[in-house]
Amino acid sequence: MTEHIKFNDWKKLDLRVGKIKAVKDHPNANKLYILLVDLGNVEQDIQLLAGLKENYKPNELIGKKVIVFRNLEPAVIRGIESAGMILAATSNNKIVLISPEKDIDLGAKIE
Amino acid sequence: MTEHIKFNDWKKLDLRVGKIKAVKDHPNANKLYILLVDLGNVEQDIQLLAGLKENYKPNELIGKKVIVFRNLEPAVIRGIESAGMILAATSNNKIVLISPEKDIDLGAKIE
Repeated sequence: MTEHIKFNDWKKLDLRVGKIKAVKDHPNANKLYILLVDLGNVEQDIQLLAGLKENYKPNELIGKKVIVFRNLEPAVIRGIESAGMILAATSNNKIVLISPEKDIDLGAKIE
Repeated sequence: MTEHIKFNDWKKLDLRVGKIKAVKDHPNANKLYILLVDLGNVEQDIQLLAGLKENYKPNELIGKKVIVFRNLEPAVIRGIESAGMILAATSNNKIVLISPEKDIDLGAKIE
């Protein structure tokens, strides 16, 4: 069994519902997309990098509601900044995004 | 802006795809269900409490794939133990579960 996480530490994570608005190829990293994600009224659209190329085409991503880990420490990967990450389930090289299973506001918090 | 979370701290969270197998009312808490959740081959079924009564009927929950925060510190609420929690998006009293948006193995890790 892995280490237990206290509820107060869980509450520090800012996980929100976002919608993918645009998808571009990363110019210097074969497997990465650059995504523009709408978080509703919470704040401006954000840019994220995601290694989804082998599992999703751009037109499957645009408009999709996803879960954004908003306050992950930002990272610059091969010259492009990522302001968080998108959550996905992985098993045997398969990657599947996770989404709200019914409609809900953009910016809704995961808790 | 909230505090940033380091990637190494994120990696400590054990978030997995599970499937709800059974739903019972908590005998001493009006808003809570007791859920039995299948995590595939990872381990035995686990019991979780979830405050979903105002948003989901039991027959909407059974068979649904959900995201389980497996290593949240266990809690006992009014005499019943919860071995983690199920993730949901919330906005204005509405609660919506989050799920893999395509099929994937039970026990698949979120990362």
